[in-house]
Amino acid sequence: MKVSELSEFRIIELLSRIIAAEGADKTDKELPLLGIGDDATAWYRSNSIELATTDMLIEGVHFRPETTTWHELGWKALAVNLSDIAAMGGIPQYALVTLSFPADTEFMSLEELYRGMAQAARKFNTAIIGGDTNRSPLLSINIALIGISSHKEGGLLTRAAALPGDLIAVTGYLGLSSAGLKMLQNNLSFDEETTNLLRKAHNQPEPRVKEGQLLLQHEVRAAIDISDGLIQDLSHICQASNVGAQIMMDRIPIHPLMQSAFGSDSMSLALSGGEDYELLFTAPPDIMIPLKKSISCPITIIGEIISDKPGQVDLINADGKIINWNNKNGWDHFATGNKANDE
Amino acid sequence: MKVSELSEFRIIELLSRIIAAEGADKTDKELPLLGIGDDATAWYRSNSIELATTDMLIEGVHFRPETTTWHELGWKALAVNLSDIAAMGGIPQYALVTLSFPADTEFMSLEELYRGMAQAARKFNTAIIGGDTNRSPLLSINIALIGISSHKEGGLLTRAAALPGDLIAVTGYLGLSSAGLKMLQNNLSFDEETTNLLRKAHNQPEPRVKEGQLLLQHEVRAAIDISDGLIQDLSHICQASNVGAQIMMDRIPIHPLMQSAFGSDSMSLALSGGEDYELLFTAPPDIMIPLKKSISCPITIIGEIISDKPGQVDLINADGKIINWNNKNGWDHFATGNKANDE
Repeated sequence: MKVSELSEFRIIELLSRIIAAEGADKTDKELPLLGIGDDATAWYRSNSIELATTDMLIEGVHFRPETTTWHELGWKALAVNLSDIAAMGGIPQYALVTLSFPADTEFMSLEELYRGMAQAARKFNTAIIGGDTNRSPLLSINIALIGISSHKEGGLLTRAAALPGDLIAVTGYLGLSSAGLKMLQNNLSFDEETTNLLRKAHNQPEPRVKEGQLLLQHEVRAAIDISDGLIQDLSHICQASNVGAQIMMDRIPIHPLMQSAFGSDSMSLALSGGEDYELLFTAPPDIMIPLKKSISCPITIIGEIISDKPGQVDLINADGKIINWNNKNGWDHFATGNKANDE
Repeated sequence: MKVSELSEFRIIELLSRIIAAEGADKTDKELPLLGIGDDATAWYRSNSIELATTDMLIEGVHFRPETTTWHELGWKALAVNLSDIAAMGGIPQYALVTLSFPADTEFMSLEELYRGMAQAARKFNTAIIGGDTNRSPLLSINIALIGISSHKEGGLLTRAAALPGDLIAVTGYLGLSSAGLKMLQNNLSFDEETTNLLRKAHNQPEPRVKEGQLLLQHEVRAAIDISDGLIQDLSHICQASNVGAQIMMDRIPIHPLMQSAFGSDSMSLALSGGEDYELLFTAPPDIMIPLKKSISCPITIIGEIISDKPGQVDLINADGKIINWNNKNGWDHFATGNKANDE
């Protein structure tokens, strides 16, 4: 069987089983607190919980030089990892960078890439302390990021903690990154404010690092960052927590500038466009309502966790009817004919 | 300037400067204990020192399917990282794996790769707890490995701790891996024992994890693993420690089977063949001599650290004369016309 016949999630599941079958999912002394399958992995240290995540950007797969500058690429490569630590409520600390590039790469381009990455590191108080450089026919950048839990008693935000009755909320606006990609790929022309908003959303996302820590401190326990698209990432929470979800379409936060630029396509971009790097989280109403006052970024309640239909996400329209949404698969990196081909 | 005009070491040096100039070499709270430039990076935790390293293998650059099976590739990808932790005297703990592969890869091949990796993890008591999978035109595997210091008071083996008067020693035999590569690339035919020895040295190296910890416990403080070749890696110690080194050619441990198979080429393989993953270390005689009894693998004293000619490695022949050795550059991943092209 070719890997193209399997989804990314299935591949990860099957490979994880091999690791477990060989006994390599733990050391002799300890089982990690959180293994494969969440935004980051985690383990106990004497006085804290430690976190680690890794994410790679590959030319032609995750970015193209026509739509992303070297500086933006450096920023984004770190930002997507920061977002994974943010989604656990963690404090990012140390980054290891593996850079691979063709021999005819201009050194100045690498400098620009490192400047972008270093600026993201500085902004989010992360130290770049190691790595590996390789010559390769293909440009790629892989980062491993290590952090600790921001919670005194060592709590974490995980995908598996959603409970029926929880409200579902998101930070910021959705779909801006995929709208930005569409604009860049098709040379769409908008006013300057819209152009800047969309380009920045796609190429220089701001990971919700502080917000993730605040969520954890306010006793939120279930969260994920939106990298595959709202529906897909909410499905991950539902599957890991064994619950269902109902989303009210008229509550989805769509930025007015995106609405003007993309009209009726906006809803689709917001529901299944990937790479938003906003946080999607759930909590009981008595936790959720005061939260909105404590966090400075927009927080929108978009639905509710239910006990019915575990693993499933239902979209409800303004008339209270369930919508048959075709594009529930979000962004799957391996299935053929998917969005990863376009980017 | 193209990156091909710069050595790997120069590229790392220049990029590190950008990170420092942007203030991204540290967080607000702390400077890491050991940043870019040793086998692994390190930082303090409340009761320990923590270590991390990352290393990538890329098809056509670091391996070819004709000479390395999927199972061997999985083993080796983890082993090269384990060796970096070993070279600091650390205890490896947690691995994050980033795997990138073409869509037409057979899933069974990935299973084999994971089995090889998981078996190395099990043998060296490391847990594979996370990662990232990507579709890519090019097969590659990147691992980030996290460990802790094995030393109660938190010591480490580093490149910068060699002192004049130290003896220089290596574990095991040198050059077997590059001899193995030569055999596999040129379809050289040897007896079964030689073939197995050389193939295993190249494709399934045994990182000196226990030995690294024993060195640290016996108060050795200066070490590196031999990945670029003996001369090159000893130069790294000399540069970082600001000392010189003299090596006695007739002391270099050359395996008798390699000597039979490669004859007069053996010395060159042992001096500058890369990927041995043996440990190269220095210590005063009163530490070095008892060491040989405590460690079960072969340990050979090959020379001495001197205060003269800082950064330089001199080769001394049986007559006590300094040899003019042409191939002092070891394996540089970027300079054109180097060995990385051949592998």
